[in-house]
Amino acid sequence: MNMDKKFIKKYETDAFNHDGLNGYAYVPNGVSVAVSNPLNEKMPGANPEQLLGLSLSTCMGATLQAIEKENNLPHRAQVHVHVTMVKGTAGLEFLVDARVRIPHISHAQAEDFVHQAEKRCPVSKLLSGSENYTIHVVDEFEPTHQGVID
Amino acid sequence: MNMDKKFIKKYETDAFNHDGLNGYAYVPNGVSVAVSNPLNEKMPGANPEQLLGLSLSTCMGATLQAIEKENNLPHRAQVHVHVTMVKGTAGLEFLVDARVRIPHISHAQAEDFVHQAEKRCPVSKLLSGSENYTIHVVDEFEPTHQGVID
Repeated sequence: MNMDKKFIKKYETDAFNHDGLNGYAYVPNGVSVAVSNPLNEKMPGANPEQLLGLSLSTCMGATLQAIEKENNLPHRAQVHVHVTMVKGTAGLEFLVDARVRIPHISHAQAEDFVHQAEKRCPVSKLLSGSENYTIHVVDEFEPTHQGVID
Repeated sequence: MNMDKKFIKKYETDAFNHDGLNGYAYVPNGVSVAVSNPLNEKMPGANPEQLLGLSLSTCMGATLQAIEKENNLPHRAQVHVHVTMVKGTAGLEFLVDARVRIPHISHAQAEDFVHQAEKRCPVSKLLSGSENYTIHVVDEFEPTHQGVID
């Protein structure tokens, strides 16, 4: 961490995992989620891929909501994050692809909003150093695919 | 994304946010979570900071669980992720500090396990390009602080 940076702290929180993939992860005095192994589809609960997608989609959605408001527009932006677990020469990796649809503005303006949001959304900033992270504007969402890939 | 990389796809999933910070984020056919603004403590639900912490703590916890198993040890590793929202010259950022306690092995062996886990856990790999991400071994957890910072 670059300690030379000057920050004003605004908010802090915690998330705990003591159970690995067999139990719960939780926020003290906050939400608790059952967690599960993505490769065991019989297990209920959320896996790290889904929790990351929920974090990024909510952060980008909230940032776009703020940008829409600044432009006197109602909130219509939709963010779908597709996470793929892949195995390569460096072991397991996640590919994170964020797809943004903003139906009430032009494609060009949507591109501008997403470009602004990328630079403001803290989760997007955290991922921006990874070549596995992509974000783009779509005019319509394509049907999604989910589950274990044989 | 570096398309020259060769990957085998193992699993894929989606997370959707249409509501910004006022409603729900969800996995199609999976978990749904109420989302909330971290700066409004009266709102129930999880915020992007907490969802990211749940993802990272679960990914690191699961990776450490695998490493413990490879060493014929029961799973005792505990991962606490502290996320701080800060405001700096580049706008809002998250500082992500993962703290790992593995009570049934020595501090030196815990350092070795965490060093291995950092290189294997896909969420840790995604964050490793950010100077805002840190991870370290602790012998005991300190009391945590949560909430809006005035």
